Amino acid sequence: LVEPTYSRNIWFTERNEYIALSLRHKGDPLYKKQSKFQKVEIYDTYQFGRMLTCDGAIMCAEKDEHAYHEMICHVPVFAHANPKRVLVIGGGDGGTVREIVRHEQIAQITLVEIDPLVVEASRKHLPTLSSALDHPKLTLKIDDGIKYVANAADGAFDIILIDSTDPVGPAVGLFNAEFYHQVHRVLAPNGIMVAQSESPRFNIPVFKEIFNAHRKVFGSNNVYPYLAFIPTYPTGMWSFSFCAKGTTHPLNRFREDAAAKFSIDQNLNYYNEQIHRSAFVLPRFVQKMIQE
Amino acid sequence: LVEPTYSRNIWFTERNEYIALSLRHKGDPLYKKQSKFQKVEIYDTYQFGRMLTCDGAIMCAEKDEHAYHEMICHVPVFAHANPKRVLVIGGGDGGTVREIVRHEQIAQITLVEIDPLVVEASRKHLPTLSSALDHPKLTLKIDDGIKYVANAADGAFDIILIDSTDPVGPAVGLFNAEFYHQVHRVLAPNGIMVAQSESPRFNIPVFKEIFNAHRKVFGSNNVYPYLAFIPTYPTGMWSFSFCAKGTTHPLNRFREDAAAKFSIDQNLNYYNEQIHRSAFVLPRFVQKMIQE
Repeated sequence: LVEPTYSRNIWFTERNEYIALSLRHKGDPLYKKQSKFQKVEIYDTYQFGRMLTCDGAIMCAEKDEHAYHEMICHVPVFAHANPKRVLVIGGGDGGTVREIVRHEQIAQITLVEIDPLVVEASRKHLPTLSSALDHPKLTLKIDDGIKYVANAADGAFDIILIDSTDPVGPAVGLFNAEFYHQVHRVLAPNGIMVAQSESPRFNIPVFKEIFNAHRKVFGSNNVYPYLAFIPTYPTGMWSFSFCAKGTTHPLNRFREDAAAKFSIDQNLNYYNEQIHRSAFVLPRFVQKMIQE
Repeated sequence: LVEPTYSRNIWFTERNEYIALSLRHKGDPLYKKQSKFQKVEIYDTYQFGRMLTCDGAIMCAEKDEHAYHEMICHVPVFAHANPKRVLVIGGGDGGTVREIVRHEQIAQITLVEIDPLVVEASRKHLPTLSSALDHPKLTLKIDDGIKYVANAADGAFDIILIDSTDPVGPAVGLFNAEFYHQVHRVLAPNGIMVAQSESPRFNIPVFKEIFNAHRKVFGSNNVYPYLAFIPTYPTGMWSFSFCAKGTTHPLNRFREDAAAKFSIDQNLNYYNEQIHRSAFVLPRFVQKMIQE
């Protein structure tokens, strides 16, 4: 009996000083290049399928990316009364755009990814994520998101999604007040920004800092954290920050019947109208963190 | 400058064939004994405080045990109209009992733990968990839970909590139909069983098997899975199975106002009346698993 080559016992590990997640994969990376910004790699894991990493941090994996991409996209789309123009900062893997193009009413999508190798890696090795990167509604720009937003016209977008890496390396500027001020300016009246906002169980100071920064710009009553289960991110508990320009509320007037029909028609993996509501219910320890 | 001893770079790892979680700890285990059933250890981790493991699997850790213990206990207590008598199978660390004794209306608690070393380790090294193990309402039995339930009187308990390890080793019998039949018999009319029911992201066949077994005994319409974020369990997404004898529904008549007041008065860490409702909302991929 010949042992197949994929029986090699090789693991990818993402760690900080105190905690580490390791995933066994099938051997050499499918993709490994150093860009101007970061090391971009793709591994084929047993548990979660193909996985994109940047500088050793897991970005997304085929078998659990649906939760993240559905939740960053469909929550603001169904909370908005009539979204037409969407801007995505980051998200070069294409997963977020794939979810946006499911919405026929959205007429115009702009994706601004700083690192061309993220797009290249995803196009080559993550076809289920990058499938919409050639969609006719999409304008794909390889550019610095901070610069792009600073130069964009007032009120140009109904929804802006900050689909960034962690607040280290190339994404640092996507977590500071000046950037959020520009995002606020570029949003149309009643526009919504949603940003991935790290884990309330992993790096608590960073989690609090993000929410405080959003509140300073959007106003204390216009920032609503919500949660999703994402096994490949540290602790498995991930948060998003829903920030409204004006008085758009994530639940009070959300298009619930449309969300219910959509989640079935599109055969979604994670989101439906009940998940939309329940994601905003926070465990008490998270409530307390945010109140402080 | 002398390096403190706790700078040693020592990690505890829990793994299956494809995925592993590692936690850095402060050195030698605080407790390490082999019982008749399993290896019982306590480590002092940086991220989650002191942690109990059985045969290398994480049972609970000081800084994230609240989610598990509050959710296994308070959900059935507030779903039940008038709970008086509670039986816990497993749970020798004491965390579940600590939550039960917060409820003054509960008159009688029986804990049946098979392994005396779990109780010993927790009493010695996990005082915040074991604090209620000497409570006057508690009868603590070191015994086989399967045997105990088989010999218990019909209708003896309003709530039975299966606070077990994974379905390997000493807990295997707690996952089979004959045991659930006995639990059903021992529940009073309108009684509730809640069992920890593994992760829908980790071992999918086991997850499905547990729910099918519960449905066969309690009836298809009387089994309701619910979810909580538990970072120290594989994938961070953990499930419980709420099984009703009779027609008790987890939400329709739950004592919502009492739950709201209780969560504030007791300064809980995770549970409140909104979490009670939202925990039963399942992502679509979990709904689909359960429907099959």
